[in-house]
Amino acid sequence: MIDLPVTNTQLMAALPSHLAEVEKIFEAQIASDLPPVADLLEHVAGYRGKMLRPTLTLLSGMAASGGDYTAMESTSLRQLAAVIEMIHMATLVHDDVLDEADERRGTVSVNHLRGNEMAVMLGDYLISNAFHLCSKIGDPSLNESLGETTGTLCEGELVQLHHRDDLGLDLPTYLEIVRRKTAVLVGACGELGARVCGGDEKTCAAFRIYGEKLGIAFQVRDDVLDLEGDQELVGKTLGRDLVTGKLTLPLILLLEEIEADRFDALVEKVQARDADWVLARLRESGSIAKAVEFASQYIDEAKTAVAGRVPDSMKDVFNELADSVLLRQR
Amino acid sequence: MIDLPVTNTQLMAALPSHLAEVEKIFEAQIASDLPPVADLLEHVAGYRGKMLRPTLTLLSGMAASGGDYTAMESTSLRQLAAVIEMIHMATLVHDDVLDEADERRGTVSVNHLRGNEMAVMLGDYLISNAFHLCSKIGDPSLNESLGETTGTLCEGELVQLHHRDDLGLDLPTYLEIVRRKTAVLVGACGELGARVCGGDEKTCAAFRIYGEKLGIAFQVRDDVLDLEGDQELVGKTLGRDLVTGKLTLPLILLLEEIEADRFDALVEKVQARDADWVLARLRESGSIAKAVEFASQYIDEAKTAVAGRVPDSMKDVFNELADSVLLRQR
Repeated sequence: MIDLPVTNTQLMAALPSHLAEVEKIFEAQIASDLPPVADLLEHVAGYRGKMLRPTLTLLSGMAASGGDYTAMESTSLRQLAAVIEMIHMATLVHDDVLDEADERRGTVSVNHLRGNEMAVMLGDYLISNAFHLCSKIGDPSLNESLGETTGTLCEGELVQLHHRDDLGLDLPTYLEIVRRKTAVLVGACGELGARVCGGDEKTCAAFRIYGEKLGIAFQVRDDVLDLEGDQELVGKTLGRDLVTGKLTLPLILLLEEIEADRFDALVEKVQARDADWVLARLRESGSIAKAVEFASQYIDEAKTAVAGRVPDSMKDVFNELADSVLLRQR
Repeated sequence: MIDLPVTNTQLMAALPSHLAEVEKIFEAQIASDLPPVADLLEHVAGYRGKMLRPTLTLLSGMAASGGDYTAMESTSLRQLAAVIEMIHMATLVHDDVLDEADERRGTVSVNHLRGNEMAVMLGDYLISNAFHLCSKIGDPSLNESLGETTGTLCEGELVQLHHRDDLGLDLPTYLEIVRRKTAVLVGACGELGARVCGGDEKTCAAFRIYGEKLGIAFQVRDDVLDLEGDQELVGKTLGRDLVTGKLTLPLILLLEEIEADRFDALVEKVQARDADWVLARLRESGSIAKAVEFASQYIDEAKTAVAGRVPDSMKDVFNELADSVLLRQR
């Protein structure tokens, strides 16, 4: 679970059991009676992360119900939370193929263990099951939104791949990539969570914006953790973004601000994958700190977006959830 | 388009324009205003194949409507046909990652041209769009069936990967893999095509069985074409199944029937990827011919399954469509 401070002790005490129910639905959906498939799925259980998306889905549903705890008992809401986590897990599995990563959250990644082929098909299996579970909720608008969301997500990944090693990538393009590949799915947690619990259009839109802003801040925090994180906590090799030619916000900010006579040297070192040298420049230039500040603004905007929509009893939780994205070490 | 004899000239004259409408829906759904994505999609247009699945979908819908031509004008039916073709195309793109194939239908494959990462994400984009388009049809039962079908398809692929290089793979396991990874999607064309046009339960089931039987025969024909096809017509390197350790029906039949004292030599040659030697044994043993006979039985069963459900005016078309699976050279 994502680390949250415990100002609202009642809610924090209730949440884990609801998330556990989401996990049960998740497990039941992907279960297979074919031993080779079941075996792979067991391995993937080790990927289970912070449950940010299911948490936001449940909380948005509860908020749209005026802060009613029983909203989190809704089967539809729990199914939706499982659906979104399943899509998220599929992207992790497929990202591992993309990045040729050999570690994921401290667990050896599927592609490293079984080859790219298994990882591709396992991800497809998770996507298929996510759509299957979504259709069981019985609200066709959810299927339509989910299809649109995942399509946008893939576009983001494709554009990112297109710009791999493109040192001319500018801030607006970076933000568009991040919005598509990360933020829209977190936005869907807020929007669809509220919708399933009967939230009106403006409420759903507010929670979508909250989620999208959180998603962008989340990605920037990821960029920073890849440079400055604690490898043990992060659970994967640091500096991978530099090695795989993926431009991150700190580097984009540095490239935009560096004096002309030092630009070529920086580009050369980036192209040579000299991670240590580049990291030193990022630190001394203050670019990492600027990226953190940038993420912090998004967190403020997220809070503002839902300020008038969250019941008083849940205001602290939504603020703290937003802050936790900035504070996270893993 | 799939090659069909033209006994029913009226229907054969009508079909291409309906398939062209399916293609329009297909293209409109996957269109992207992001240049890097649009560029990739243009490349994939070269994958367009025999349109067996859309053809079967349209014909099943028309048959369930008592042979009424206007059934093929139904937007829902055309959308469904596009959905299934999109899933099929996604599996082709992802299969190329699986097999490290460098050619597909005479076109350089996406993974070869742009790397595995692009191919994975492009396939995901197609899957997402298929589910998105499916939800637009407005019948939630279609989304549920599609999710179940694609989940089964992935299980088939995963079990096949698990058995790669497993020379102990028996006929029932082979059939279960083929049923899941190929046949259920062709079965869905028949079943869902009929359902969209108001076919009753028994009619839908009959067309599902027809499609599944066709799907199995189709895969066996694929196995044979990989050994004995005309490379130019097939549009990909022959003998790939042997090289990638994928057991095919002719080889399974040979392994089951070969005398004990020749078994070890065969296994050794298969493991050494000595395609020429293995091909010669397959030919002289008659295993390829037996595989063809096996597929032929499935085609007969397919015809029987729908015999009482197809309007008289379409009987010849369903028989000829079944035969075309056996006769195809590509």
